Amino acid sequence: MKNDEPRRRTLGVLLFPGFELLDVFGPLEAFGMRVAKPYFETLLLAEHTGPVESAQGPRALAEGTIDARPVDLVLVPGGIGTRKEVDNERLTRWISQRATDAELVMSVCTGAGLLAKAGVLDGRRATSNKAAFAWVVGQGPRVHWVKQARWVEDGKFWTSSGVSAGIDMALAVIARLSGLELAEQIAVLMEYEWHRDAGNDPFAAIHKLV
Amino acid sequence: MKNDEPRRRTLGVLLFPGFELLDVFGPLEAFGMRVAKPYFETLLLAEHTGPVESAQGPRALAEGTIDARPVDLVLVPGGIGTRKEVDNERLTRWISQRATDAELVMSVCTGAGLLAKAGVLDGRRATSNKAAFAWVVGQGPRVHWVKQARWVEDGKFWTSSGVSAGIDMALAVIARLSGLELAEQIAVLMEYEWHRDAGNDPFAAIHKLV
Repeated sequence: MKNDEPRRRTLGVLLFPGFELLDVFGPLEAFGMRVAKPYFETLLLAEHTGPVESAQGPRALAEGTIDARPVDLVLVPGGIGTRKEVDNERLTRWISQRATDAELVMSVCTGAGLLAKAGVLDGRRATSNKAAFAWVVGQGPRVHWVKQARWVEDGKFWTSSGVSAGIDMALAVIARLSGLELAEQIAVLMEYEWHRDAGNDPFAAIHKLV
Repeated sequence: MKNDEPRRRTLGVLLFPGFELLDVFGPLEAFGMRVAKPYFETLLLAEHTGPVESAQGPRALAEGTIDARPVDLVLVPGGIGTRKEVDNERLTRWISQRATDAELVMSVCTGAGLLAKAGVLDGRRATSNKAAFAWVVGQGPRVHWVKQARWVEDGKFWTSSGVSAGIDMALAVIARLSGLELAEQIAVLMEYEWHRDAGNDPFAAIHKLV
């Protein structure tokens, strides 16, 4: 490898039945874009390879099982399926292991409930989507939950608010790991008006949390 | 069916190799959300059922073939795959037939190039994403291409600009067909700051089209 080649990281995105479509494919649009390919390899992971049905209905194909290979980055989506998966010990154990060996662990929406249930957010600041905030808080009584935030970064853990906030966080992670220029280029190619301020969250008030 | 039940429409979303992830799953997040289920049934369609690889890499499962059943609404995504599919006569013929019998035909990003090549936009106003505008214009010399627009509505044809503009257009279509209240509810559940103004397009200037 030449010295001027960028470091390429593997991003493992967890799928489970009832995952929220945009929690997964919003960030993957950014991490998977052609200009991002020298920097990121993306993998859809699940307990079993094959089709996994989303909360919205459409099915995506898991390319590997969660234990197949190590990944540098992890993304855990939300969706109605999290209500069941918080009791899936294989999944929470996998999250707990990744929290030790991965460089960075992200969640979108109620995916924070899975991280919390796995215990990896204890003593840390974190957020989740605002429509299901009380349920997520119940999964992690020792987490310092932030009611108003588009996303929260604490150490290697990046937790975002609902659905579209995952895109904003993904771009912030890309900026951190691979440079602001790349993140800005991706946002323009997506024709996405990137919200760069992690504290900009109008939905906390809409859901009467603040 | 009781009279107070909403009309339920079928939305067929076209997949082809190299489709842009968010062009498909942004709108599907909105149309497929639980509160939208009484109003919309969504179907992923392709030339063949089974896995279809996106431009970003992740694969989605086509649930039906394009000829399997009639649909009320059609969504044609963009993505690098459109460069090849404009020469796929089965696909452009399907688009042309749907332009006759569907209630509404949408495109996101370079999906407008497929509609243009099928001839269904001739004499109409339409837009596409700004990064690949010249290529799309070349697919439809008799189309009145609008350089600065988040989306354009002309008759039953709704064409949106790049990637995330598809979400804005999808919410506008939901508002038109099933009521503003439903569209607003979905935007809040997505924690998405909906751009409601079809003319609000900062990317035309970024790409020096205006």
